[in-house]
Amino acid sequence: MDARELDAADPLAGFREQFVGAESPLVYFDGNSLGRPLKVTGERIARFVDDAWGGRLIRGWDEQWMDLPLTLGDRLGVAVLGAAPGQAAIGDSTTVLLYKLIRAAVDAMQRRDPQRTEIVVDHDNFPTDRYVAEGIAAERGLELRWIEVDRSSGVTEELLAEAVGPKTALVVLSHVAYRSGYLADAEALTRITHDAGGLILWDLCHSVGSVPLALDEWGVDLAVGCTYKYLNGGPGSPAFAYVAERHLDDLTQPVQGWMGHADPFLMPPGYEPAKGIRRFLSGTPAILAMQPLSDMLELVEEVGIAAVREKSVALTEYAVALAADLAPLGVELGSPRDPARRGGHVTLNHPRMREVTEALWHDDVLPDFREPNGLRVGLSPLSTSFDEVRRGLQAVARALD
Amino acid sequence: MDARELDAADPLAGFREQFVGAESPLVYFDGNSLGRPLKVTGERIARFVDDAWGGRLIRGWDEQWMDLPLTLGDRLGVAVLGAAPGQAAIGDSTTVLLYKLIRAAVDAMQRRDPQRTEIVVDHDNFPTDRYVAEGIAAERGLELRWIEVDRSSGVTEELLAEAVGPKTALVVLSHVAYRSGYLADAEALTRITHDAGGLILWDLCHSVGSVPLALDEWGVDLAVGCTYKYLNGGPGSPAFAYVAERHLDDLTQPVQGWMGHADPFLMPPGYEPAKGIRRFLSGTPAILAMQPLSDMLELVEEVGIAAVREKSVALTEYAVALAADLAPLGVELGSPRDPARRGGHVTLNHPRMREVTEALWHDDVLPDFREPNGLRVGLSPLSTSFDEVRRGLQAVARALD
Repeated sequence: MDARELDAADPLAGFREQFVGAESPLVYFDGNSLGRPLKVTGERIARFVDDAWGGRLIRGWDEQWMDLPLTLGDRLGVAVLGAAPGQAAIGDSTTVLLYKLIRAAVDAMQRRDPQRTEIVVDHDNFPTDRYVAEGIAAERGLELRWIEVDRSSGVTEELLAEAVGPKTALVVLSHVAYRSGYLADAEALTRITHDAGGLILWDLCHSVGSVPLALDEWGVDLAVGCTYKYLNGGPGSPAFAYVAERHLDDLTQPVQGWMGHADPFLMPPGYEPAKGIRRFLSGTPAILAMQPLSDMLELVEEVGIAAVREKSVALTEYAVALAADLAPLGVELGSPRDPARRGGHVTLNHPRMREVTEALWHDDVLPDFREPNGLRVGLSPLSTSFDEVRRGLQAVARALD
Repeated sequence: MDARELDAADPLAGFREQFVGAESPLVYFDGNSLGRPLKVTGERIARFVDDAWGGRLIRGWDEQWMDLPLTLGDRLGVAVLGAAPGQAAIGDSTTVLLYKLIRAAVDAMQRRDPQRTEIVVDHDNFPTDRYVAEGIAAERGLELRWIEVDRSSGVTEELLAEAVGPKTALVVLSHVAYRSGYLADAEALTRITHDAGGLILWDLCHSVGSVPLALDEWGVDLAVGCTYKYLNGGPGSPAFAYVAERHLDDLTQPVQGWMGHADPFLMPPGYEPAKGIRRFLSGTPAILAMQPLSDMLELVEEVGIAAVREKSVALTEYAVALAADLAPLGVELGSPRDPARRGGHVTLNHPRMREVTEALWHDDVLPDFREPNGLRVGLSPLSTSFDEVRRGLQAVARALD
């Protein structure tokens, strides 16, 4: 099908114009790494600086900001995570939240059952997840149980079932694999983990905002994710944590700060964790940095994540179809062919993809490169057109020629 | 002396107009808690959103952002901390950085000398410092050694000398006490700690940007501080960490993330800490949130911290003089009388200060209240006029009447 026809038939096509750079001929295949800003964001954040910060000054904390990590967490939960209010909070980086939540989980499991000494991870999980788990295992006297995965897919039910057992404390997996785009069956893998008596933490960085999530329904224990990819929060915007309500009394995290205290301003001696998800906060919340996320959530609330996913699948299907034409040039699909097992990006493998990426950047076509030989075509659903996909893949063909 | 004469004679008076709200009749005594924005910041951050984030997109990381935590850290180090480049980084919240640095220090000390099991803290240190230290002591099997201080002063050389000894691993102190404004003799206290064989971590939250610092010269080991007070970084702006060069090879922190790795984009198996201060990073740096700090550093670089301190002392001297007139109403000075031992704020004690604070807020005079009975008059040197001090203290007198 023709790209122009696909764009004409796309019910979400009009939303693309709400993003900065929509008019530019540049092809952006990296919205899965850093989403474009909304056009309203620049002006709104300037207004925030002058009116909210500059005008309300310290009063802003009482009036709104103290609860913003939780109210914004609730909005994210309802619109995107499939989580009832009270279970999500915005704050820190994904890495710091991974540390806090993994520690909370394994420390609680160690109290309950000291035999559960293993953190299950896969070799192809995002580096920061592996590094954090590795560090915690070393400091807590635990062990890592590694799952070996095929790089063009991800952690399957069979692979996980082999890895978990009576020693499992926690399983840490990515919902969408950063390299291949493999979309794990979170519900099934959560069930397998629970059947083995373990807890599971999902890293949602590469799925949140593009793939429907139903954390409550799936019975997920813990989750983290970043907000600068499909949630367009800006470079280094704060991440989010989800902790299922049933764990909120029992789990505590190690970075004990005033904002996670039961009464931050009484400032008493001795740390007492707040009730609810607030106990997972530590320091002063990054209020200014949360503003662009708030703008994007408005848009996602309007469109609905089901429609976003529908367009996402259409975009990746189109990219996969165009990539098939590149097979004679030696390009192989590094992502699942089945759209039900694929997130919002498509990876194309070729031994020369590093140089291809460089050439494309010079040509204002911006994918990214992931070791060892993958070119990632990230298709942020609300800001990417089918014509952009077409132009981008034509540029790949030219670069390889 | 008359407030108008003091303003007329103030060489820095003109800088006040560079801040949002300078024209407003509102009296702002809380710039020591949340500094005002610069007038350039709103427009510049909007431009950052549209041009840098929206225009450079993912290329921004290669072009500038990957190093921004360190380049901005270097600027802060040179202009404000008295630190040669390569020892400071911007990122995370103060609480998270406290966790990372305290862990780094006590873990290293435990490797060197397992007898050093004590973290020395004082009862009047800021709550988050106490809570973090308490949590780390519990998880690492260490003990807290508490210093009892007089609330209207702080940790003196005598008090510290009594507390440190062969069991000291780390001393954690605030340079300026958040309640009293007591300015500790950082150089002397650092020497006392070293003489006892311990390391010292200075919390600079309440001094940075208003009091000259000479971390290198004083031989400080570690420091953290926030950037939203006298550095006007905005609500929840990222904090900074300082680690003296001599410790950079030996100390490692527990939140092992990709941004602290020796090669973040090779994404190899196994965590290997980067050389230098980069190893204290964890997750994706908060680039957008660093922009206002960058604006304020420009101003501080222009004015120089010595001049800032000179005005700060003049402002607090004036406030102390005016407060003396309130003694008949029962107001007591809760801060040191000697300006050499006082930071940028002055605390006034009275049993009814909680209600007074409420009344003042209704009257657009914004100090803050700190338990049990302190009204803090925070005087951010570059954005506060002498006339503002006069009007604010008149309002205190009216409220008490």
